[in-house]
Amino acid sequence: MKPSLPQGTRDFSADIIRRRRFILDTIKDVFELYGFEPLETPALENLETLMGKYGDEGDKLIFKILNNGLDNPLKKEEIQKGFNKILEGKNEKNITERALRYDLTIPFARYVSMNYGKLTMPYKRYQMQSVWRADRPQKGRYREFYQCDADVAGTNSLISDAELALIYQQVFRRLKIDVDIKINSRKILAALAEVCGGSDKMSAITVAIDKLDKIGIEKVKEELIENNLSVQQISVIESYLQIGGSNDEKLTKITTLLNNVETGQKGIEELKIILNYINEVAGQSSTSSINIDFTLARGLNYYTGIIYEVKAKNIEMGSIGGGGRYDDLTGLFGLPNIPGVGISFGVDRIYDVMTELNIFPEDINKSTTVLFFNLGEKESTVAFKEMQVLRNNGISCELFYENAKLDKQFKYASKKNIPFAIIIGSNEVEQKTCIVRDLLKAEQQTIPVDNLSSYFR
Amino acid sequence: MKPSLPQGTRDFSADIIRRRRFILDTIKDVFELYGFEPLETPALENLETLMGKYGDEGDKLIFKILNNGLDNPLKKEEIQKGFNKILEGKNEKNITERALRYDLTIPFARYVSMNYGKLTMPYKRYQMQSVWRADRPQKGRYREFYQCDADVAGTNSLISDAELALIYQQVFRRLKIDVDIKINSRKILAALAEVCGGSDKMSAITVAIDKLDKIGIEKVKEELIENNLSVQQISVIESYLQIGGSNDEKLTKITTLLNNVETGQKGIEELKIILNYINEVAGQSSTSSINIDFTLARGLNYYTGIIYEVKAKNIEMGSIGGGGRYDDLTGLFGLPNIPGVGISFGVDRIYDVMTELNIFPEDINKSTTVLFFNLGEKESTVAFKEMQVLRNNGISCELFYENAKLDKQFKYASKKNIPFAIIIGSNEVEQKTCIVRDLLKAEQQTIPVDNLSSYFR
Repeated sequence: MKPSLPQGTRDFSADIIRRRRFILDTIKDVFELYGFEPLETPALENLETLMGKYGDEGDKLIFKILNNGLDNPLKKEEIQKGFNKILEGKNEKNITERALRYDLTIPFARYVSMNYGKLTMPYKRYQMQSVWRADRPQKGRYREFYQCDADVAGTNSLISDAELALIYQQVFRRLKIDVDIKINSRKILAALAEVCGGSDKMSAITVAIDKLDKIGIEKVKEELIENNLSVQQISVIESYLQIGGSNDEKLTKITTLLNNVETGQKGIEELKIILNYINEVAGQSSTSSINIDFTLARGLNYYTGIIYEVKAKNIEMGSIGGGGRYDDLTGLFGLPNIPGVGISFGVDRIYDVMTELNIFPEDINKSTTVLFFNLGEKESTVAFKEMQVLRNNGISCELFYENAKLDKQFKYASKKNIPFAIIIGSNEVEQKTCIVRDLLKAEQQTIPVDNLSSYFR
Repeated sequence: MKPSLPQGTRDFSADIIRRRRFILDTIKDVFELYGFEPLETPALENLETLMGKYGDEGDKLIFKILNNGLDNPLKKEEIQKGFNKILEGKNEKNITERALRYDLTIPFARYVSMNYGKLTMPYKRYQMQSVWRADRPQKGRYREFYQCDADVAGTNSLISDAELALIYQQVFRRLKIDVDIKINSRKILAALAEVCGGSDKMSAITVAIDKLDKIGIEKVKEELIENNLSVQQISVIESYLQIGGSNDEKLTKITTLLNNVETGQKGIEELKIILNYINEVAGQSSTSSINIDFTLARGLNYYTGIIYEVKAKNIEMGSIGGGGRYDDLTGLFGLPNIPGVGISFGVDRIYDVMTELNIFPEDINKSTTVLFFNLGEKESTVAFKEMQVLRNNGISCELFYENAKLDKQFKYASKKNIPFAIIIGSNEVEQKTCIVRDLLKAEQQTIPVDNLSSYFR
């Protein structure tokens, strides 16, 4: 049997893991610097926890687990009925009652609902775990991939919104990726809809604006016409989309455009407060700009306030982060009135950006520090002992397992990126010395074995 | 809807994650010190990769994924036939072709088989990931849990066997758990079987010996009688099980007992070589003893050479580690003659042992270092700015999100184990000072805000 991997899944070898860890550890460190606590939820959730939360399309992409014991003859009739329901596209507890995590937000909402009394509110949690989606695999899209979220639940304070933008700044500064952090407010989009035909047009307008990047303004206008917006309404949307200038100039223009709409003024006021907080600490920290972008819409999701999106500069790549504020995290699970705000990092895309820009730290592929060569039984027993002294001093070492040709041992060191070789032959055993070879510089020296630890410290 | 978790799964809150990370990071650091490289494989494997690898009982415990699109009317007939096969306890590609990782060994073997040409051999990998088993949940047994393995593939060198015992020593020394590391050889058990009725009795003898701890010598003897061993043969096994003394004494006694059996002498020779390596570095490192234990059998699995098992001293708990050498890692996947040796850590049990012995580091639940109190809009804007200075210096901070009663803010700090509060009221704003309160000592002092970073460094 020739083994293979399921479509859309990946093995991660050591060199990839080291790069991914660099990204994940950076994000984790910044989350913790801002007072976020880790949470981990199981990969398995009850199917009913997930169903109906991601729209009809999402429901179809959930991986469901087959119940065990379906060959139980005592239950044959029930199970057969269950299979018939599955054939009709329905779910059936007798066949499947568990599913794989599809995102980190619904498990977070479930967790908050189940543990509300015990949690310290406002609850600031981060979560970095795999999710699974039965999407058609394609370049950059996998069926098993990591998500990386931070959310604050239980406060309307805009301090948390401002902090999340700063987290984006700090993470990408540490990763050395120049980014454009875009910010807008769903309240402003709601106000625009009110001006242009009423709030029932909000979803059509949002969806159309969301496509601006991909299809251009003319196609967006066509789509709006199809949605029965008048020429005059579309011209308001066009002038909205054309608002430019500095953040302050944009705020002045949008205030005029949405002059009489209360929701809009509220959204503008919130944007101002958030940008004030950010400006307070500007210059202290970053070159990454935080820019109002009224064309930002964030598709069809549950956001109700501020929204974010992050793009890398100087490279063609979709967004590498996104998020926003939502009114009601846990209502679906019976706990009303918990607002929240959160952001997400696209780890796979960040990895691709950093690979393409070649900005991973140079020593990222450092593995073992020292390879002791194996020159025979007696010599390797001495090497084994010296190796353990180094390990006790925190220096990672290996002893080549067999008394192979030197050639082969050098090749092993080279393939594993091991920078130092230590050679203990019969002469060295006798004289209590060893040869330390710097494999990168191709230099070597003989030193007393007793000096080995201090050599590497 | 009141949400719940699937049976046998767990959410991990921050305090549990910090403890688990302490264990996992310790193990990871030691693995890397010994030159092992990380590997991560997907949770989803092709069902055919897993089936038939874990015995009939194991097969039943594999979680299978329902294919998507089972409501496709064009495929109705095929799918219906598929369901009929499932009812008969067979697998059917039309219904399920993927499954959840059941252990880390088979994915490792699959990975080595698929990537053999590219790997640096001998390949030393470690892997720390979740696995899933549809076992009946009970105390300490979960359906989703972590495994933590290190294996060396592609060498018969006993240096690797010796190193794995040293890894056990070093990990448990770092975790401050006193352990008994037991060692035996399957070759010795094979020789015992040869002496007592031939090699076809090996599995019966191994299974019976494996139960000695739980059922006692008399029941073991009964089981051997049921397996048609003669009184004389059973008396040999009994004297085998009673071998005591130091490692050296045990080796002398077993040499006599298995005098004429070649496999046995080979096993004894290997044990001696491994213990020699270990003795070379003894005293350098550890109080944890590595002891020959001829009653160690490791149940019905694929080991063929050295076997290990680790138990914590001074506490009632099953084994917290185990492993051994096997002849053929990848034969099942078409790549013959790759020997291997590996060990595994039982993370959940190690967690329980450390909790019961109360030996986690005292500061393990340290979260944010500083909470800035919120005393109003103007004050909190100043606090926000100072907080960012601290964060830029690597000190984790939070600003309480609302201008709530001090009482509530103190309570938040206490519930989150935050050791310091910084209070900036209108006086402090004016005088450019702040009050730093050590919440553990209940002491406070007023310092210039400009000195804050150096205060915490």
